[in-house]
Amino acid sequence: MKTSFLKDQIISKNSFLCLGLDSDINKIPSFLLKESDPIFSFNKLLLDSLNELIVSVKINTAFYEVNGSKGWETLEKTINYINQKYPDLFTIADAKRGDIGNTSDMYAQAFFNHMKFDSITVSPYMGNDSIEPFLNHKDKHTIVLGLTSNKGANDFQFSTNTDQDLFKKVLVKSQEWKNSENLMYVVGATKASFLKDVRLIVPNSFLLIPGVGAQGGNLEDTFNNGVNDQIGILINSSRSIIYAGNDENFLKKSYEEAKKLQYKMSILLNNNND
Amino acid sequence: MKTSFLKDQIISKNSFLCLGLDSDINKIPSFLLKESDPIFSFNKLLLDSLNELIVSVKINTAFYEVNGSKGWETLEKTINYINQKYPDLFTIADAKRGDIGNTSDMYAQAFFNHMKFDSITVSPYMGNDSIEPFLNHKDKHTIVLGLTSNKGANDFQFSTNTDQDLFKKVLVKSQEWKNSENLMYVVGATKASFLKDVRLIVPNSFLLIPGVGAQGGNLEDTFNNGVNDQIGILINSSRSIIYAGNDENFLKKSYEEAKKLQYKMSILLNNNND
Repeated sequence: MKTSFLKDQIISKNSFLCLGLDSDINKIPSFLLKESDPIFSFNKLLLDSLNELIVSVKINTAFYEVNGSKGWETLEKTINYINQKYPDLFTIADAKRGDIGNTSDMYAQAFFNHMKFDSITVSPYMGNDSIEPFLNHKDKHTIVLGLTSNKGANDFQFSTNTDQDLFKKVLVKSQEWKNSENLMYVVGATKASFLKDVRLIVPNSFLLIPGVGAQGGNLEDTFNNGVNDQIGILINSSRSIIYAGNDENFLKKSYEEAKKLQYKMSILLNNNND
Repeated sequence: MKTSFLKDQIISKNSFLCLGLDSDINKIPSFLLKESDPIFSFNKLLLDSLNELIVSVKINTAFYEVNGSKGWETLEKTINYINQKYPDLFTIADAKRGDIGNTSDMYAQAFFNHMKFDSITVSPYMGNDSIEPFLNHKDKHTIVLGLTSNKGANDFQFSTNTDQDLFKKVLVKSQEWKNSENLMYVVGATKASFLKDVRLIVPNSFLLIPGVGAQGGNLEDTFNNGVNDQIGILINSSRSIIYAGNDENFLKKSYEEAKKLQYKMSILLNNNND
């Protein structure tokens, strides 16, 4: 799915919620451990329960790689399940890859061709030719790290001269690249006030916004500073939804958490329409 | 293995060569395609033939992920084979990972605990807390991207004011982090003249230097600008060695290429000793 269809999904579901499947064998409800692939069972239950409240799913590869090749099987099963059962969900491989050209091309093949993700997150450190191989897949989206939600973002993404902030340089420069209309950006909600700066540089791009929930960002500020005429934002929530409960009734808790967020989103969307 | 032992290996083998197993199913000799795991067979043959000429092996995850969970099995089999048969080789997971803290911790577990690599390459874009979880493994090395060998390095790693070059900022700042004595850096050989600048900031760290060979860097310049009293450099070569031949006799060609490099290295090391 392309983001051109995302606005329709957002309007029809009254939601710009992205569910982050940071599924950790040490945190999922223990009754699932008897399953043959507990993490896949956990993911499936969450997807079957929450699909109407969300428009996107983000799968962070770290939580699968920690289980080795078996974890990669779980990753493959999860993305295949989504693509077959919920093709309207915009899928994100949160992989933060990036390498020299011929190598990035391998990553693009892995995530776009082999696993058929709609998009992938990439790190901009190595510049244009490290990201071009992803952008060459015109029916896909490439999500560049702009301003991240963590404390360490302060180490390199800013500069003493704000005009020369690295995250701004990344936004400006990447817009010059071939197929840049397929770029999206990660912008952390913990830095909601910076969303205005971001929108001055990339008014049209969709933004993937982590940091609401466990990391403390504010939903309303984020929406007001980030919204554009395509809505243009996906808010990701992972831990606060998927680990809302930890027993046989965890789905009820997860649903309530997701519903709370989706309800707030529906109000923001409706007010935005007025 | 720690880099403290690497100097001994380098002296005893007269080599600071790192073999890059960028093993691509479309490029390996076709007679291997009948094997049950052609890429593992290819890697094994190369390791058995070249182990005396090299002190390190670098495995780029992209070339394994492109084959999905099967590729991850090949990756696991390859690192296990090295750890069992050639424990003196310094192993590098060229993964260029990096994420928020709890997520980077998963990557560290995957590569350090599960697969028992000696080191991993990481991208510095997200700053301290994205790299700290790797550095917490005190018996391992964390290799931060400094100055990369590709064209896109010019996009963000430099600045109009050379004092504020991002790659220098990464070197300076990272040296302040906890367990920074376990840091290494990627510095591309295509930028050999910059190695002097790098050595002013990180005189003691081991450097992983790609770009000699297929990417065109010069070995002698690289050595002279990068060497320190621990030798302190690993030169990686991937494609120019592993794809030197493409028929039943490919190992002979690969051996010749590796031997040529190792011979040049032995001269540089001997001259350095004088």
